[in-house]
Amino acid sequence: MTNYDVLIVGAGPVGCVLAERLATISNKRVHLIDKRKHVAGNCFDEKHESGVLIHKYGPHYFRTNNKQLLDYLSNYTEWIEGNYYVTCKYKNEYYPFPINRLTINKFFDKNFTKEDEVKSFIESLSVNIENPINSEEFVLSRVGQQLYKAFYLGYTLKQWDLHPKELGPSVCGRIPVRYNEDCRYVDHLYQFTPKLGFTSMFNNMVNHKNIHIQLNKEFKELDRKNYKTIIYTGAIDEYFNYKEGKLQWRSLEFNFKEVKKEFVQKNVQINYSDEFKYTRSVEIKHVTKQECSNTVISYEYPTNNGDPYYPISNLENERIYEKYKSLAEQETKLNNVYFCGRLAEYKYYNTDEVIEKALALYEKITKND
Amino acid sequence: MTNYDVLIVGAGPVGCVLAERLATISNKRVHLIDKRKHVAGNCFDEKHESGVLIHKYGPHYFRTNNKQLLDYLSNYTEWIEGNYYVTCKYKNEYYPFPINRLTINKFFDKNFTKEDEVKSFIESLSVNIENPINSEEFVLSRVGQQLYKAFYLGYTLKQWDLHPKELGPSVCGRIPVRYNEDCRYVDHLYQFTPKLGFTSMFNNMVNHKNIHIQLNKEFKELDRKNYKTIIYTGAIDEYFNYKEGKLQWRSLEFNFKEVKKEFVQKNVQINYSDEFKYTRSVEIKHVTKQECSNTVISYEYPTNNGDPYYPISNLENERIYEKYKSLAEQETKLNNVYFCGRLAEYKYYNTDEVIEKALALYEKITKND
Repeated sequence: MTNYDVLIVGAGPVGCVLAERLATISNKRVHLIDKRKHVAGNCFDEKHESGVLIHKYGPHYFRTNNKQLLDYLSNYTEWIEGNYYVTCKYKNEYYPFPINRLTINKFFDKNFTKEDEVKSFIESLSVNIENPINSEEFVLSRVGQQLYKAFYLGYTLKQWDLHPKELGPSVCGRIPVRYNEDCRYVDHLYQFTPKLGFTSMFNNMVNHKNIHIQLNKEFKELDRKNYKTIIYTGAIDEYFNYKEGKLQWRSLEFNFKEVKKEFVQKNVQINYSDEFKYTRSVEIKHVTKQECSNTVISYEYPTNNGDPYYPISNLENERIYEKYKSLAEQETKLNNVYFCGRLAEYKYYNTDEVIEKALALYEKITKND
Repeated sequence: MTNYDVLIVGAGPVGCVLAERLATISNKRVHLIDKRKHVAGNCFDEKHESGVLIHKYGPHYFRTNNKQLLDYLSNYTEWIEGNYYVTCKYKNEYYPFPINRLTINKFFDKNFTKEDEVKSFIESLSVNIENPINSEEFVLSRVGQQLYKAFYLGYTLKQWDLHPKELGPSVCGRIPVRYNEDCRYVDHLYQFTPKLGFTSMFNNMVNHKNIHIQLNKEFKELDRKNYKTIIYTGAIDEYFNYKEGKLQWRSLEFNFKEVKKEFVQKNVQINYSDEFKYTRSVEIKHVTKQECSNTVISYEYPTNNGDPYYPISNLENERIYEKYKSLAEQETKLNNVYFCGRLAEYKYYNTDEVIEKALALYEKITKND
């Protein structure tokens, strides 16, 4: 196969979904490349040298409210229940996180049993700030000083190397506060993990005669003239040779450590507010449910170097991104190049969200076919 | 990863299983190569351009009597029931195959209801040949002239381009004859198909940090000095530069044809005794149970050119193979090169059998570790 209809740059969730749709539904010949040695992007999981299945680029807790999306992915994987529980360690005690009734009772030595009581109590703690303009103000206005200091301040400083004052309200504002005893990490209707892993799911998705996958392949190695349509899922500033400046990203370094025990932690993720350089320790075996006598813990060290993970939301970056966005719109009109995904849109997406974006782009591209 | 403990040549079932065992159990760093663009060897399945999942190198009806083997593979796949039914078309009628009571009743216009009746009847047809020395004699001694001519002779001539007289007794002797109404193709205890396909199963098997897969890679491109141990699953005569002569193989050409109907055939495989150049037509959708509105039929044309499929069992080939086998034993002793699998052993294996061979070789290699 040498004559392609579409080039897709990046074989992460966006690239795989679009390759599958274009090949299966639209009968297109797709050239799918990735500069890494594997498909699945940051969802990539593999057996560590110890034999334990790990999430190489940080834990992916798949969840969605979109039944259609779940059904679509179910063509490529079986699922197991998503066992997503996070605790926060503070002054040597472990607390359920996000904050819920159990967190409050333990932290303040209370015995609340009703949601109303918890609600009133948290309201009594909250600082009266009408229009919070940063993450500190937002959290204070919601849960007050003590919980802010215990569960948000230290963690955020490590995660962003920025004070919550310097971050927009939404950064810490995404996390819910609950008045009941629900200890699940997220609220979504469907919380499932691919039974044999994400890599397996995405490999199954792109196993199609009309999809030619090339790994360890850079976009710049290819002659763009050979493709009528290009879908680009890489970093948008890189695409335009950084001519409007470099967008900043927060990155992570992972230290994976094997332990010859069945389990080390009580749950998949522990956040550390007041100790260690790493923000959190993740024992993904709680989620993968792999049966083995050993385990692997991953320690996450935030850094400004390395692979792009989190867009750093500030005015300067937003200004730069807006310029690239205009250039991208031109590029779509003139040269049939479509930009999609976290790196191309400079926007943090969960896995389900980014797959929704990919499916929407597929509809857009093929609307006039 | 550049420093490997083992090179495995060929990423078919043998290569994948050994890579997995060596990486997972023995903590070895494995370089796994294949000259094709995919793993899974002849088990490879993929979505055809029509979107229908096909078995690219002929149908694989997975079955085994070995519970341990099934459990091992269950780490890498879910299973669905193996819907393996074959019919033989002769004079415009379809007969269950292998021969059973229904075949006999229809062919001879009988109404047998008991196994004993069928057994006596078939015995009355059989030709008295005490020590059959070829496939014709074997089949005649078992089921007599009429069934031989209807179900074996024409098919065998096409399949081998040889008369059953020229083939050893075992070639047609592998197929059972049944006195009951069991229409399943095989008798094995466990008859299952990987729910999402063989490629998915083998991809899952080799997704391990210590396994480095390189596709489109020939053995001769590598420097053998870099590897302490080599497992070779390619053709044995090629390994030794054909110095003892070329081993003969029977091959197949496949013609895949999409049909815009849910199903075309009543069952997965039809054998043709007395018409067409192709031996059989295969509609693998009966096995994969894929839900789609179209289907693909594969027509199989035996040939002496193309990829090696079936060793051609005759004295000359056996003589040549014995020479290579001695050379291979030397090579194992002197240079730690192990030979395993259909191509390396010049022996037809079913998928379960060849995986058993691979697991046995793993035990042998690591016995003294």
